[in-house]
Amino acid sequence: MKLYDCSTAPSPRRVRIFAAEKGLELDKVEIDLSKGEQFSDSFRQINADCVVPVLELDDGTCINEVSAICQYLEKAFPEPALYGSTAVELATVVMWDSKIEQQGLAAMRDAFRNSVKGLKAHALTGPVSYEQIPELAERGRTAVSVFLQRLDEQLEGKEFVAGDSFSIADISALVLVDFAAWIKITIPADATDLKRWYDAVSSRPSAAA
Amino acid sequence: MKLYDCSTAPSPRRVRIFAAEKGLELDKVEIDLSKGEQFSDSFRQINADCVVPVLELDDGTCINEVSAICQYLEKAFPEPALYGSTAVELATVVMWDSKIEQQGLAAMRDAFRNSVKGLKAHALTGPVSYEQIPELAERGRTAVSVFLQRLDEQLEGKEFVAGDSFSIADISALVLVDFAAWIKITIPADATDLKRWYDAVSSRPSAAA
Repeated sequence: MKLYDCSTAPSPRRVRIFAAEKGLELDKVEIDLSKGEQFSDSFRQINADCVVPVLELDDGTCINEVSAICQYLEKAFPEPALYGSTAVELATVVMWDSKIEQQGLAAMRDAFRNSVKGLKAHALTGPVSYEQIPELAERGRTAVSVFLQRLDEQLEGKEFVAGDSFSIADISALVLVDFAAWIKITIPADATDLKRWYDAVSSRPSAAA
Repeated sequence: MKLYDCSTAPSPRRVRIFAAEKGLELDKVEIDLSKGEQFSDSFRQINADCVVPVLELDDGTCINEVSAICQYLEKAFPEPALYGSTAVELATVVMWDSKIEQQGLAAMRDAFRNSVKGLKAHALTGPVSYEQIPELAERGRTAVSVFLQRLDEQLEGKEFVAGDSFSIADISALVLVDFAAWIKITIPADATDLKRWYDAVSSRPSAAA
């Protein structure tokens, strides 16, 4: 299996951490987003949406979207389980991963992509050009801070974000917190549960992936 | 099982169609979003994010987020499969459902929630107030149209959106197309594959759910 990756980008890091927790070694192909390699003709053949990560299987099948890659790896390599085991555990993990994606990471992308100079005509990922909306960058910053408080509340008395075991939801939340630091949003001083959880998950060996 | 529902809203419709395809009968509790019932103290106990749908299991466990509810139902009631069967089929379905969610439905929410008078202080779902951003409504309209073209290309020579069988991706795409009509975005005349697919999926009995 081959991972089209970008070592500095948040989305592929979710897959790298996921694979590391499974003990999987993936061949990496670095796509330099800062040079626009995701828009090359050759990469468009791999993913018409021009984003990483993409997992290429040995038969050439290409899977993109973080949730799709992780669910593929979960089904193909079930141990250790990172989406729970029972139907309720699966639902709890998917529910929190979805909240982190839609309330946290989407807001971070709004904040980042609508404010960074190098992305002036790329406020959305993908091949179509969209101009930045400065108000949306501001709204994104607010929404990220709101969501970090929500995570802190969720973690009160809990070791992990979604249930009793480490899961994809912890991976996505870890990547969110580290991504937020890019625009100087840090864990609030009173978010002691979020801080305790962050210290624990970011000291796992997989966090370096 | 009990579904906290809103008969006019797109997100709970995805779950209603999914359950209908499985042959499941869910007790429905109507939450009137137009009256703000999702912000009531009693509903906040059911979902602190103040959105429908929520599936309440017989033991009182509440699951929200469409993808989490559908994956719960898939694991608890496997037949007929709506997430494929093999790991690659699962990945293909989740990949397309994710694209429809993030490129299609998220853009539709941007277009709708940032332009409709009744949502002036609710440009994002949830309990926190966010003002509308008119530019974002415009960007959302454009992005929805771009994504309908993308779906048309994906459907060339294919009966369904993701693989050989009807799946959650078809349900999400059907709900997207019908939601887009609310703001007068319709299937482009030259999108013949999307039109052929739409006619087929919207004539299934589940589409009335």
